[in-house]
Amino acid sequence: MYPYKQLFNFTQEVFLQMGCSPKDARLAAEVLLEADLRGVDSHGVARLSGYVRLWEAGRINPKPKMRIVHETPSTATVDGDAGLGLVIAPRAMDIAIEKAEKVGSGWVSVKNSNHFGIAGYHAMEALSSDMIGIAMTNASPLVAPTFSTDRMLGTNPIAVAVPTRKQPPFVADFATASAANGKLEILQRQEKKAPTGWIQTKDGQDTTNANELKEGGALLPLGSDKTHGSHKGYALASIVDIFSAVLSGANYGPWVPPFVSFLAPPADPVGQGIGHFLGAMRIDAFRPADEFKEHMDKWIETFRKAKVKKGEKCVLIPGDPEREMTAQRLEEGIPLLPPVERDLEQLGNKFGIKL
Amino acid sequence: MYPYKQLFNFTQEVFLQMGCSPKDARLAAEVLLEADLRGVDSHGVARLSGYVRLWEAGRINPKPKMRIVHETPSTATVDGDAGLGLVIAPRAMDIAIEKAEKVGSGWVSVKNSNHFGIAGYHAMEALSSDMIGIAMTNASPLVAPTFSTDRMLGTNPIAVAVPTRKQPPFVADFATASAANGKLEILQRQEKKAPTGWIQTKDGQDTTNANELKEGGALLPLGSDKTHGSHKGYALASIVDIFSAVLSGANYGPWVPPFVSFLAPPADPVGQGIGHFLGAMRIDAFRPADEFKEHMDKWIETFRKAKVKKGEKCVLIPGDPEREMTAQRLEEGIPLLPPVERDLEQLGNKFGIKL
Repeated sequence: MYPYKQLFNFTQEVFLQMGCSPKDARLAAEVLLEADLRGVDSHGVARLSGYVRLWEAGRINPKPKMRIVHETPSTATVDGDAGLGLVIAPRAMDIAIEKAEKVGSGWVSVKNSNHFGIAGYHAMEALSSDMIGIAMTNASPLVAPTFSTDRMLGTNPIAVAVPTRKQPPFVADFATASAANGKLEILQRQEKKAPTGWIQTKDGQDTTNANELKEGGALLPLGSDKTHGSHKGYALASIVDIFSAVLSGANYGPWVPPFVSFLAPPADPVGQGIGHFLGAMRIDAFRPADEFKEHMDKWIETFRKAKVKKGEKCVLIPGDPEREMTAQRLEEGIPLLPPVERDLEQLGNKFGIKL
Repeated sequence: MYPYKQLFNFTQEVFLQMGCSPKDARLAAEVLLEADLRGVDSHGVARLSGYVRLWEAGRINPKPKMRIVHETPSTATVDGDAGLGLVIAPRAMDIAIEKAEKVGSGWVSVKNSNHFGIAGYHAMEALSSDMIGIAMTNASPLVAPTFSTDRMLGTNPIAVAVPTRKQPPFVADFATASAANGKLEILQRQEKKAPTGWIQTKDGQDTTNANELKEGGALLPLGSDKTHGSHKGYALASIVDIFSAVLSGANYGPWVPPFVSFLAPPADPVGQGIGHFLGAMRIDAFRPADEFKEHMDKWIETFRKAKVKKGEKCVLIPGDPEREMTAQRLEEGIPLLPPVERDLEQLGNKFGIKL
């Protein structure tokens, strides 16, 4: 178990060594570690060395000059200057929030960025301003559209955070694939089989082989197959791709550059970097905030009291499991798997930082 | 087979007889019939007598005085005055489009409305203004949250329409349940079984009985079960409910009034009527519209050319099947099932209109 503060300091120091400004290094560490706190282990420090390798390959700019390239009172398009998504996305969300303060809502599409950690972090940024926050991003193609065997879309997550009064906030944050790649990675490490409906072979057949992606297989959209609505998951992932990248001028679909540095980005890019889409809506742009929050509390209390199926403990509200995990990990520390520990030690050696 | 024009004239006449203004009757008929054209038979003329019964029960106001009760430059909350959703939603979308013209985007949450037909119609309204259109609505509770046996949410659809240049527009329109109720109704008429993963019994067990909802069962969220991501479908349906009803002041969750007139609305409403959420984003609020549309064409062409799984014909773009159906039905006419034909005849007799 590693105390949050220890991992935070280490991560911040790595970003500083990469050449990030102190402010950016702190922010990037905070965003990255939020994944570990919330239990999304695949998106946290486990990825730190991946960001470093992208920087070494010249694909991440540690000193980005982010700028607005197009705007209206309620919208903006941001060029992330190849910076860390961990830094560009929160700054883009700040722009959305500022616009919402002025005209009720703000919507920012971002190009020329890199992976932004967990979508939930960015959506939650809006909560303290009494706003609904929305965050999405495209990502390297791993998901096949319904009826296809080609990997055309990322696991393209959507996050929505909604303010409340006494209840904890509603925070949905989910991949639009039936299972995120991080869940597969866990099964791979444990040498376990995957449930059917998560992956298909390169010919589009059902498989439970958690390593199938290495053999040309693909993840399936939420819904798994046509009968169970995979065309809906495919549509959702497409919407995320369009809002994040076609609107902004980033790479979309199969052109999204891979996160891993050993795979080169496509030679014929259709845009710059990867794309995000961030939104903020002021609650009191629709109805008095207190009134709304009272009803959100009632919404949550009602759903929490819904009748529970035999064998299950309770009906969860989006955000419940992650919040409980955060409380536990701030208290007990964050567990790291041996390969992640080794990875961080090697990073420490490279930069002369002690974990 | 019934020619579109014949069904349109009949439907328009029924709405006129209900007391709608000529303008409203025409609009309501157009919106309702769009469902039949696009092959969403459950949401078209098959529901006409349902709207009439709600009007007879005093739950639909044929002469609504719709008004904006709260607004900012980019947002509005609309009171639909218990009007037909078929009329209120397009008018609310007009407000969203006007706001987008002025400040880049427009977002309208609607309370005190009724069912609005298919979500896709409203999203597509934005296309001719070179805008992305978004439409969602809550609906009578039929869907159980993950781990629950209570019906807490409607099939709460989401529609997103995106403009293109030479390609037909991208139009996603889908229920956030694994299967919409209309699909069940078809199986019921044919006395067929439903696939597992669509419905659960009142105790939360898997079932293939297409009539299970009459015995206290529930529809399942997109994803079907926790392993396949039903918590994501549950989150999506919740987001639709919150944006449509908690933001506007409509009824949410289990309080959404039923569409069928023989079931009374809950005695302790938490808001007024049902709720919708409509959005419009001007493409050139993000990047030049021509540039965007060229990339959307490329996006669509790329996905259409993705490798097809053996046994399937082609990779579909959201909106393809509905567009083909529309062309076919405008040409060949709209088929009606015998019970729907009888229903319309009875309506005709009631109002002295010939089908």
